[in-house]
Amino acid sequence: MKEFPTVSQTTNVPVPSPATLAPLVSPRSIAVIGASDRPARIGGRILARLKETYQGTVFPVNATRPTVQDLTAYPDITAVPEPVDLAIVAAPAAQVPQIARDCADRGTGAMLVLSAGFGEIGGEGLRAQQELAAIGAASGMRVAGPNCIGIVNLTIGLRAVFSTLDGVPQETGNVAIVSQSGGFGMGMFETAQASGLGVSYVCATGNEADVSCGELVGYLAEQPDVEVIALFMEGVRKPRSLLAAARRALELGKPVIALRTGRSQVGARAAASHTGALSSADDVVSAAFEATGVIRVDGPSELVEYARVFSAGRRPRGRRLAVVTTSGGAGVLMADVAEAAGLAMPGPAPELETELAGLVPSFGSIANPIDPTAQIVNDQSMLRGLFTKVADDPGYDMVCVAGAPRGLGPALRETMQQASRTTDKPFAVWAGQPDVALDLMRRGVTACTDPNLLIRALGELGRYTETRERLLETPFRAGRAPRTGEDTRTLAEHLSRRFLVEAGIAVPDEGVAGDADEAVALAARFGGPVAMKLSADWLAHKSEHGALRLGLSDPADIEAAHRDLATIGEKLRPVGAEPAVVLVQRMAPKGLELVCGVFTDPTFGPVLTVGLGGTLVEITRDRRLALVPIGRGEAERLVGELAGGRLVGHVRGLTAKQAGQVADVLVRLGELAHGRPELRELEINPLVVGPDGAVAVDALAVLGPDGERPC
Amino acid sequence: MKEFPTVSQTTNVPVPSPATLAPLVSPRSIAVIGASDRPARIGGRILARLKETYQGTVFPVNATRPTVQDLTAYPDITAVPEPVDLAIVAAPAAQVPQIARDCADRGTGAMLVLSAGFGEIGGEGLRAQQELAAIGAASGMRVAGPNCIGIVNLTIGLRAVFSTLDGVPQETGNVAIVSQSGGFGMGMFETAQASGLGVSYVCATGNEADVSCGELVGYLAEQPDVEVIALFMEGVRKPRSLLAAARRALELGKPVIALRTGRSQVGARAAASHTGALSSADDVVSAAFEATGVIRVDGPSELVEYARVFSAGRRPRGRRLAVVTTSGGAGVLMADVAEAAGLAMPGPAPELETELAGLVPSFGSIANPIDPTAQIVNDQSMLRGLFTKVADDPGYDMVCVAGAPRGLGPALRETMQQASRTTDKPFAVWAGQPDVALDLMRRGVTACTDPNLLIRALGELGRYTETRERLLETPFRAGRAPRTGEDTRTLAEHLSRRFLVEAGIAVPDEGVAGDADEAVALAARFGGPVAMKLSADWLAHKSEHGALRLGLSDPADIEAAHRDLATIGEKLRPVGAEPAVVLVQRMAPKGLELVCGVFTDPTFGPVLTVGLGGTLVEITRDRRLALVPIGRGEAERLVGELAGGRLVGHVRGLTAKQAGQVADVLVRLGELAHGRPELRELEINPLVVGPDGAVAVDALAVLGPDGERPC
Repeated sequence: MKEFPTVSQTTNVPVPSPATLAPLVSPRSIAVIGASDRPARIGGRILARLKETYQGTVFPVNATRPTVQDLTAYPDITAVPEPVDLAIVAAPAAQVPQIARDCADRGTGAMLVLSAGFGEIGGEGLRAQQELAAIGAASGMRVAGPNCIGIVNLTIGLRAVFSTLDGVPQETGNVAIVSQSGGFGMGMFETAQASGLGVSYVCATGNEADVSCGELVGYLAEQPDVEVIALFMEGVRKPRSLLAAARRALELGKPVIALRTGRSQVGARAAASHTGALSSADDVVSAAFEATGVIRVDGPSELVEYARVFSAGRRPRGRRLAVVTTSGGAGVLMADVAEAAGLAMPGPAPELETELAGLVPSFGSIANPIDPTAQIVNDQSMLRGLFTKVADDPGYDMVCVAGAPRGLGPALRETMQQASRTTDKPFAVWAGQPDVALDLMRRGVTACTDPNLLIRALGELGRYTETRERLLETPFRAGRAPRTGEDTRTLAEHLSRRFLVEAGIAVPDEGVAGDADEAVALAARFGGPVAMKLSADWLAHKSEHGALRLGLSDPADIEAAHRDLATIGEKLRPVGAEPAVVLVQRMAPKGLELVCGVFTDPTFGPVLTVGLGGTLVEITRDRRLALVPIGRGEAERLVGELAGGRLVGHVRGLTAKQAGQVADVLVRLGELAHGRPELRELEINPLVVGPDGAVAVDALAVLGPDGERPC
Repeated sequence: MKEFPTVSQTTNVPVPSPATLAPLVSPRSIAVIGASDRPARIGGRILARLKETYQGTVFPVNATRPTVQDLTAYPDITAVPEPVDLAIVAAPAAQVPQIARDCADRGTGAMLVLSAGFGEIGGEGLRAQQELAAIGAASGMRVAGPNCIGIVNLTIGLRAVFSTLDGVPQETGNVAIVSQSGGFGMGMFETAQASGLGVSYVCATGNEADVSCGELVGYLAEQPDVEVIALFMEGVRKPRSLLAAARRALELGKPVIALRTGRSQVGARAAASHTGALSSADDVVSAAFEATGVIRVDGPSELVEYARVFSAGRRPRGRRLAVVTTSGGAGVLMADVAEAAGLAMPGPAPELETELAGLVPSFGSIANPIDPTAQIVNDQSMLRGLFTKVADDPGYDMVCVAGAPRGLGPALRETMQQASRTTDKPFAVWAGQPDVALDLMRRGVTACTDPNLLIRALGELGRYTETRERLLETPFRAGRAPRTGEDTRTLAEHLSRRFLVEAGIAVPDEGVAGDADEAVALAARFGGPVAMKLSADWLAHKSEHGALRLGLSDPADIEAAHRDLATIGEKLRPVGAEPAVVLVQRMAPKGLELVCGVFTDPTFGPVLTVGLGGTLVEITRDRRLALVPIGRGEAERLVGELAGGRLVGHVRGLTAKQAGQVADVLVRLGELAHGRPELRELEINPLVVGPDGAVAVDALAVLGPDGERPC
């Protein structure tokens, strides 16, 4: 394990330490402001729950009553006999700013504002919310919410949420939930709990006046009783905190699984209206997650099931899955999903094969999936040996059992329990019936009712170890966020090219030819066919304007091309613009054409892109994104993922060596963009990858003022 | 509605009519061969269940006992006093062929063989299975199984399955399940029933000695109490029956939702080992489903949830979805999924907007998703008006409610029930809690616990109506299946081209030039630059061998090219092969390059392909498949789906007119392949789509012997 970095070291920007969230999530004392006797009221429900199970001290605050729910009440926070860690506020929005000032004055550690009527209604509400944030910032008191459903921390009996909990099991467990949406967070809590997955923490953030999802991830990652963090978010408010927290969780080996909505147009609009948060382009959010090892999911079922599989705490050494099936059909389905999920399902090694042949009837299958057939109805004892032999075999990294029919009774589950206990490899069961799955979970066996989700979760489990190792090879440096609304200017090709040279990216021999003779001389110096083109900051699509000539060798052709280009340049030149210059460039060797570059995202800063080139690139949209800077391993991953993972190694694609050369270019581009905040955009189109390496044949840069803004 | 076609009319091949399956699925009398007193034995369990609920007559058959379970027993089927519709066989495999002969002799309508030990163990078992099939074919007795879990038909109290049913609700409903895997079929039955979705029929087919999945789909589609068919299959044994049945179901407007496994390499191998069935290439199976409107899913959860949404029987007029959310977060998620599922989520029209503004608090949202916020906790009555107004609005085709918190009590469900009743549009609810969803289902409201699956199912619902209309425009003609293991031969380009001319597909002017003078004369006749190339049945990759020259105008160049090509042709010619000829072809205008053609699948016959062209086509694998012949609407769909649906209408892609021209080519190719069984393969590469239409610039045909085999 690496040395412990504080968040501020990781990002080079001062941000509150995760430890400042301890009074919010793990308070030793709580004041309930707006406490009520009536359980139908939020302030009543919260207080009643605290009385029931909370292990710390509780102070009801009520302006008009001496006692609330048989506890001594205080007229306001200043009257409370000691400073509290946490003030929970269930009061009308209009009163909250004054309450916040009083809480800050009283030395309160954190405030949890349940009340609605702030940023989400805009105008006056938004101003009040900003006031809360300012009070917090000035005093050091952390402010959670407003418009927030509350916080659960079962390790100290804290259930400060106003949603109903009737009939919901409340078992501690190593899963923590962080959610911008309270309803969603509590829904996940209930689904997990009802299916036997213990969740100790639920932290809803509501409008995030101050405390953000990312910071809570950072706090929870440091808790020894948390192993998995499930995150639901709509907008990213403090990107650096989120990145730093996710990186820290990765260092600690605690997976963060994230559902981030708002990827569609309608969804992004709705998210903005509902939360008031900025939406980044969705593929940039994915890149931010990939940069820090966050596992992205598409829905709540995935979120819960992935958390379930990770919460078992077992990490496979590789991606080789053995499937033992009690139903042939389910085994085939799992093999299909496994392939799509990047898992390998090799057949058994000869020694294991011999042993299996002694256990499985001749009409079953000892290939993988291993199918002992309905024979297990008659002979369950055979299964015990089967599970053990498969789990012990060094040829497999994880074991999945397809099917736990209720009809085979608890004896089957007992067998699975024993098998799971005697191995430290991931061991998971698909049990189609929820009651059977629940029984297995209570026995400590990972069990899921959806076979597709189960296998996909195992696929992520296999990937996580690799991703972690790859990302931790490179120290984490957060990107710089640009100032917004600033002037930018485009550079001509021959000036843009200087950035490539600075970064050490190969470019063809090139020169500016002031007249036809110079052009001929340049071509002679380069000693091979040349391309000639116009270069100007106002000229984008050269070939569409006849401003590009290829494969010229004959001096007469070169002279004629210079004349033509000069004429075209003058015709195209906008009034008052600088004249275009004529470039003579040595023709690059033929090769595969890629497009790569960087652009600047308003939330996450510089983003690297790489994709297939050619005329259809805009239509096929096959490109991969990454935050910069990136390590060499990440760069190789990007290239390897192009064209559905088929580009590298394909006879018409890139060799492994060429892929490495492209990865080098990406790493250099990343360093360039990271070190040059004024470089807002740089596109290499095409990057030609031939037998001698990758050459940047054309480039276009956009500059902005130097500097950055904190975020 | 079209005239009722029998299956044999539809396919032009005699196959048993679906009506022959009535004795199997809807028997009036049953003999249980191998009946037992002991409920632990299969023959005991089946008999006990029949006694409990079956509405027909039951005859136990037991060689040694005069009564079984207090019913008079018969020593063998010949002793049963009357011919029965169905004989259920739970006897050792070795006895089954003799039992089958006896059953056939006794005039039994159908036989359901539960016993294992047949095709799945190979060798002797496979021969016994083939014997069963032969006995059935000779006598007209249908044979289901062997190695089959049984059949459920709740409409007549038939529960002839040996799996446990303890604790499983058994409500009739308009969903039928057909499954090659019995375990899978009964698992789906239980999942559906436990979540309030009534399923009247489960038909497992086991090894399919005779009765296949497809035929059962055909039978069930004709049942008036069936509206949705959920199909699980691993291999396709009788492709024509399946296609005919699916087409018939489409005509009747009864959706078939299919989970077909074995798409991965490991899965296909496992499926073959487990069922003994042939596996087609997975994308061909998808094409077969698309040709007949079958909705393909990837897992059991999708299968059940799609069946649930379709079983409500409501068909939207379009794809415009209104989402009403009780939790902002869920609404955003649904908007994301809706976009990916092809649903539109337009905002409300001005009139509705005004009405909504009167109902929803100012800090909620009257855009779509419509978010009345947590305000509904305090004012549920507002929801009633909201639901009604949205459902009544002509601007929406379906309504989805995101969230039914249990905490809001049954009153909320009552409100949803009323809203659902007062509209005939699809009205569905995401209820995260299974008990809440079940309560809604019992109230007749479509309710699902997974929001992603729910929205995707609504997307399929929206698509189904359109697909059905498009497919029913064209009469159904099944493809011809080829003989296998036969000799084929490749044709030279200029001979392959004749098929294109026959089909009416545009080709460039072209001629064979015996010498250089002829080449020059041809070029002069065409009056523009020409391409010159070698054509021979042994020459595949022309450009890699220097056998292709482009853009020649100068007579000297043309003469030189002829000399070069002739020399290259002689150098390349294999010993004993015919000489290559030199073609002179008028250069096609520039345009977008596509690749299209037909190939022959061993199961489904000729398959049409179309994809993007260019050097990276093999890597990007962007192609669409369809069974032939295809209608114009289907052909347009294929083109429209290329490049993620972005090719048509994109500035660098195809205009709508050009897309239509490509669709014409595809229709013609389809007719050609359908009408010419000897044409095993034909590839047009490239098909150049320019301003003047689509031109087939190069072609390659592969021929086999004329004729076909039944399948």
